[in-house]
Amino acid sequence: MAKTTLTISSKTYSSWSLRGWLLARFAGLEFEEVLVPPDDPAVRAEILLLSPSILVPCLRHQGVIVWDTLAIAEYLNEIKPKARLLPEDLAARAHCRAICGEMHSGFAAMRAALPMNLKGHFPGLKVWSRAQADIDRITTIWMECLTRYGGPYLFGEHRTVADAMYAPVVTRFVTYGVQLEAPLVAFCKTILAMPELQEWIGAAREEPDEISELDVEF
Amino acid sequence: MAKTTLTISSKTYSSWSLRGWLLARFAGLEFEEVLVPPDDPAVRAEILLLSPSILVPCLRHQGVIVWDTLAIAEYLNEIKPKARLLPEDLAARAHCRAICGEMHSGFAAMRAALPMNLKGHFPGLKVWSRAQADIDRITTIWMECLTRYGGPYLFGEHRTVADAMYAPVVTRFVTYGVQLEAPLVAFCKTILAMPELQEWIGAAREEPDEISELDVEF
Repeated sequence: MAKTTLTISSKTYSSWSLRGWLLARFAGLEFEEVLVPPDDPAVRAEILLLSPSILVPCLRHQGVIVWDTLAIAEYLNEIKPKARLLPEDLAARAHCRAICGEMHSGFAAMRAALPMNLKGHFPGLKVWSRAQADIDRITTIWMECLTRYGGPYLFGEHRTVADAMYAPVVTRFVTYGVQLEAPLVAFCKTILAMPELQEWIGAAREEPDEISELDVEF
Repeated sequence: MAKTTLTISSKTYSSWSLRGWLLARFAGLEFEEVLVPPDDPAVRAEILLLSPSILVPCLRHQGVIVWDTLAIAEYLNEIKPKARLLPEDLAARAHCRAICGEMHSGFAAMRAALPMNLKGHFPGLKVWSRAQADIDRITTIWMECLTRYGGPYLFGEHRTVADAMYAPVVTRFVTYGVQLEAPLVAFCKTILAMPELQEWIGAAREEPDEISELDVEF
């Protein structure tokens, strides 16, 4: 049988790669990583929000090819039901899918203004109004979930697709020093403490950095 | 029991309203429409691609509130399994979700350049390069599906979520006179002939049009 693979790109910059990889790990799937170089034009276009993410993440499993992060999540939920990637309650499951859908299709201003960067720390960055509106909506989503389901994850004691979908937002908030209320800080710490995310961040820090900087100061 | 409702906005311009409404009709759900005026600021922001579509479409059913079109599709698939909104084959189901995910998160250039407009016809409109790349990707998606599953719908004889997701693209291609190969023209005609879509288009034509035009010529 062909081996199971997950195609991903930069661990430092590709938030969709991180989401797909976390989902596969949450599901307990055994897989090999296939790395597409971040300077591949198709991957660059995806990271730059110019094209849909067809190349990464992409899961190949027993002859089935699945791209698009939400499609991967639903596929993993079907083949690994014991992982409980979606909440067991019908209404909570609908809620989970709705906020995952918001992350999947929205928040373009936040994604453009605060790109995922697991090597950087820019706490003084000015966030302009449209990105701030995205941040405000995200914190509202998180607070509603934590209040309704009791934390520490978005839908309670068990990690779901939603925690994988919003994990790269948590890392952005750290990278750019976004100020949050106490319950949201606790949630971010919970996400950051996940061993899978720590493993990914460690691997990102080992990646060579090909971005050259303008080495002058104002 | 509270009645089942689907919140939608402009039938002429709101492609996400159309998708949610078609899905509910494909599922055989009995529901009442709740109309949000298209000049509501939140709806305007959604139509202008400025914010995620929280308000429309939004389904309320037996105490469950579901927004986001893909979440509504998955919810309808769960409560109305006999409607077979997703393909029965595991690999085809993954494929269906992947192309629905591409429509859900992508094609921003096409959506901005060719907004849904069920009252307009602009066959001479110049399509610029980035929107053309979106159109090329969409026609590739359609051709792969029609070839693999045999048509007349994207996944064969039975209508799925994918046909609802891409229906507003079909109407855009008509509105803006996008040239297509013969198998894709046949697919567009199949979608346009659906009685539900005809009903929606008829209702759109009855809507008052509040857009004032600059009444001069070059």
